[in-house]
Amino acid sequence: MLGSRGGWRALRRCASVPRAVRLRVREALGARRPADAVRVQGWVRSVRSQKEVLFLHINDGSSLESLQVVADPSLEKKDLTFGSAVEVQGKLVKSPHRMQNMELQAEAINVVGPCDIWSFPLKMKERHPLEYVRQFPHLRCRNNTLGALLRIRSEATAGIHSFFQDNGYVHIHTPIITSNDCEGAGELFQIETSREAKESVEKTHFFNVPAFLTVSGQLHLEVMAGAFTHVFTFGPTFRAENSQSRRHLAEFYMVEAELSFTESLQDIMQVMEDLFKTVTSTVLSKCPRDVELFHKYIAPAQKGRLEQILKHKFMIISYSEAVEILKQASQTFTFKPEWGCDLQTEHEKYLVKHCGEVPVFVVNYPYELKPFYMRDNEDGPQHTVAAVDLLVPGVGELCGGSLREERLPFLESRLQRLGLTDAYQWYLDLRKFGSVPHGGFGMGFERYLQYILGVDNIKDVIPFPRFSHSCLL
Amino acid sequence: MLGSRGGWRALRRCASVPRAVRLRVREALGARRPADAVRVQGWVRSVRSQKEVLFLHINDGSSLESLQVVADPSLEKKDLTFGSAVEVQGKLVKSPHRMQNMELQAEAINVVGPCDIWSFPLKMKERHPLEYVRQFPHLRCRNNTLGALLRIRSEATAGIHSFFQDNGYVHIHTPIITSNDCEGAGELFQIETSREAKESVEKTHFFNVPAFLTVSGQLHLEVMAGAFTHVFTFGPTFRAENSQSRRHLAEFYMVEAELSFTESLQDIMQVMEDLFKTVTSTVLSKCPRDVELFHKYIAPAQKGRLEQILKHKFMIISYSEAVEILKQASQTFTFKPEWGCDLQTEHEKYLVKHCGEVPVFVVNYPYELKPFYMRDNEDGPQHTVAAVDLLVPGVGELCGGSLREERLPFLESRLQRLGLTDAYQWYLDLRKFGSVPHGGFGMGFERYLQYILGVDNIKDVIPFPRFSHSCLL
Repeated sequence: MLGSRGGWRALRRCASVPRAVRLRVREALGARRPADAVRVQGWVRSVRSQKEVLFLHINDGSSLESLQVVADPSLEKKDLTFGSAVEVQGKLVKSPHRMQNMELQAEAINVVGPCDIWSFPLKMKERHPLEYVRQFPHLRCRNNTLGALLRIRSEATAGIHSFFQDNGYVHIHTPIITSNDCEGAGELFQIETSREAKESVEKTHFFNVPAFLTVSGQLHLEVMAGAFTHVFTFGPTFRAENSQSRRHLAEFYMVEAELSFTESLQDIMQVMEDLFKTVTSTVLSKCPRDVELFHKYIAPAQKGRLEQILKHKFMIISYSEAVEILKQASQTFTFKPEWGCDLQTEHEKYLVKHCGEVPVFVVNYPYELKPFYMRDNEDGPQHTVAAVDLLVPGVGELCGGSLREERLPFLESRLQRLGLTDAYQWYLDLRKFGSVPHGGFGMGFERYLQYILGVDNIKDVIPFPRFSHSCLL
Repeated sequence: MLGSRGGWRALRRCASVPRAVRLRVREALGARRPADAVRVQGWVRSVRSQKEVLFLHINDGSSLESLQVVADPSLEKKDLTFGSAVEVQGKLVKSPHRMQNMELQAEAINVVGPCDIWSFPLKMKERHPLEYVRQFPHLRCRNNTLGALLRIRSEATAGIHSFFQDNGYVHIHTPIITSNDCEGAGELFQIETSREAKESVEKTHFFNVPAFLTVSGQLHLEVMAGAFTHVFTFGPTFRAENSQSRRHLAEFYMVEAELSFTESLQDIMQVMEDLFKTVTSTVLSKCPRDVELFHKYIAPAQKGRLEQILKHKFMIISYSEAVEILKQASQTFTFKPEWGCDLQTEHEKYLVKHCGEVPVFVVNYPYELKPFYMRDNEDGPQHTVAAVDLLVPGVGELCGGSLREERLPFLESRLQRLGLTDAYQWYLDLRKFGSVPHGGFGMGFERYLQYILGVDNIKDVIPFPRFSHSCLL
């Protein structure tokens, strides 16, 4: 991710006076050879003053590791404290220490911005718990764990875009504001202009119709799959559900893909599995140190498990098999497992455990449980649909997908029974003009991060935690 | 973007019966050598039946160009019409035609999905005007112009992500729902749960405080620049302004970046210019045919202009110089140019024309015109701030940026005068803990597309046009 020198080169070109070469900390740490006139900027992570020598550690967020600066004690000054911002100029040399490649021998240290350490909530060399730093949404990114998390999140985001681009998918920005509320996926957020909200007058509806924040870009993607064959989106989605839990967010990110000319549900599962494995391998190879922090301090044992998972095919069981497994379980469940009922979190947990704590695809759900657009398997009168959920240990449902009903008569009669024909006239229309077998899936991005890193609370994998502060920021 | 074979390989692995190799149209067109057993799927763009031979053109959205299929007339069938979806199996051979590399000699043609051509609003070989196809938001992506547009949009999106990643920026998903409404950038959308909206009861506020859709991720990015040095975001932003114009959208995409340790406004302008040039070069090299369509039919002469622009440095003039130029203009303006007044669209147009129809940076705007966070240039008592706008021909303001006020006393007194100290306590806080000179900018993504492609109406560069239809989709 980092490491290209384009950035500082571009910046240097503009400096009015020729000065030492500016390096990011990551570049300095990874340098192949010593260099004479180097400038490094960042925030002080530790200061250790000895009689003969002053040691600093400088971090600029380009990596988890900080750069060690070695200086003459005469360069010490009052403002040079933990948290302060500095610019250090000097020589980059091979470090005598086993744990680091290079260090910076300071010739000049300039405190760019001092830090009021008494009121700064982060303390030197302290491993603050996630619950503690969650109280400071504007400062917690300067904590090691959150720094690592956000670099991983950034790398995973890039990995998702690359995966789809490399496989010939067209990226589509599906609408955030939509009139589509029919999926029944949960309570919606409705939007109005702030003037309407303040004056609580008769609503005129800015968009002529009630408008909501999207719960999924699926239906819009289906439109596009009818032109580009393979499409994806990766953006925010919303649910107005109680978010005071460690499993839910009001605003979260979803990766969604749609594929035309599918032959079976296998096509969809193959892309889900490839996406998971490719992005995870990218993250593991691009941010090894950042991931290691989580696998060392937050979720020990997750590392070995992930490596195993990347090597093996994901398991596939049918919903009917899943219900049989649950019925034969020695465990008693709060919700009795019964064919035709939704799988509850306790059931998902048991299934994943039963299969050996690995990701499991559950396929072919009861027709009556699923939304109108899922494809009838025709294995009985409205018996099952070609739906799939991917369950993973610790998190539960990570992905959900299905083949979509591409056959006009099936869709028409189902929408009619539901009284939705008028609302979905445009969706029916798509089946009149070259309709093809197609399907798609969505993956919750925060749940993905929770799973690979072993993070318990979903609020710890987003940049700005809500509800932890009186203000949303 | 397309052309990797990972996609169809992944799909093929799952096919239950071994069959011919599945190729996307783009892959077939670009194939280096003939191939025997090939399958191509897509939608029919033309059918031409001659006595001895049947010609089809098949498009699957992977490229603007369609694949020519040559078949024996015996393979013709009633359903094989414009708009229908087909699978063609046969031999890929060198085409005798100068304009195409390969063509497909059909052995079997299967109509996967017929098309009701009488009610299909797109017609064979017709160049439909943009205003016409805008009426069919669920079908217009099957039109050549919109297909090209969305492939370019996808490529530009990928190019933006790559530019920042290659230059060491961390990607941050800044919040969409925020309590921050103080930038004064325009009227906001407020959100509530759909239950609150329906029952019009006393609002309880789901988030405890009024919540809005973001107008900019800048302040959140500033938080992150204080940890990662270089950060960016690329996501939806919202304005509840009248969108019945060809220049505004209620929902649009913005690229925003923040850089710590800046030395002058030049640092910001350099990144703006590099971003524009890198992404534009990427788009021109990755989608030459798609861009050509716009430069041929929508905005002739734009091609040569763009190539010139990529070769030269952007111009820089100060706001004060701009006002002098406007005062000396022979043209009379509706708004009289005066130092201290905002530049209007008519002024921006004149300035760009005066400079030779090229992109122009205007820097150092009056202090009183700009928001509280912009850095005082100290060239007089609250005279100008280090702000920059990038103006481009046809579109006006494409980017806006500034150095941010990093000095606590300056910011404190300005917020106090504005009565905003309480609301921005967290923002002041950032200046107490290692504050550094920093700045950033935003670029409107739709305006960018409008500019490089020469598209007049902003609704023609988004995937789903609003207001053109009674329903939002």
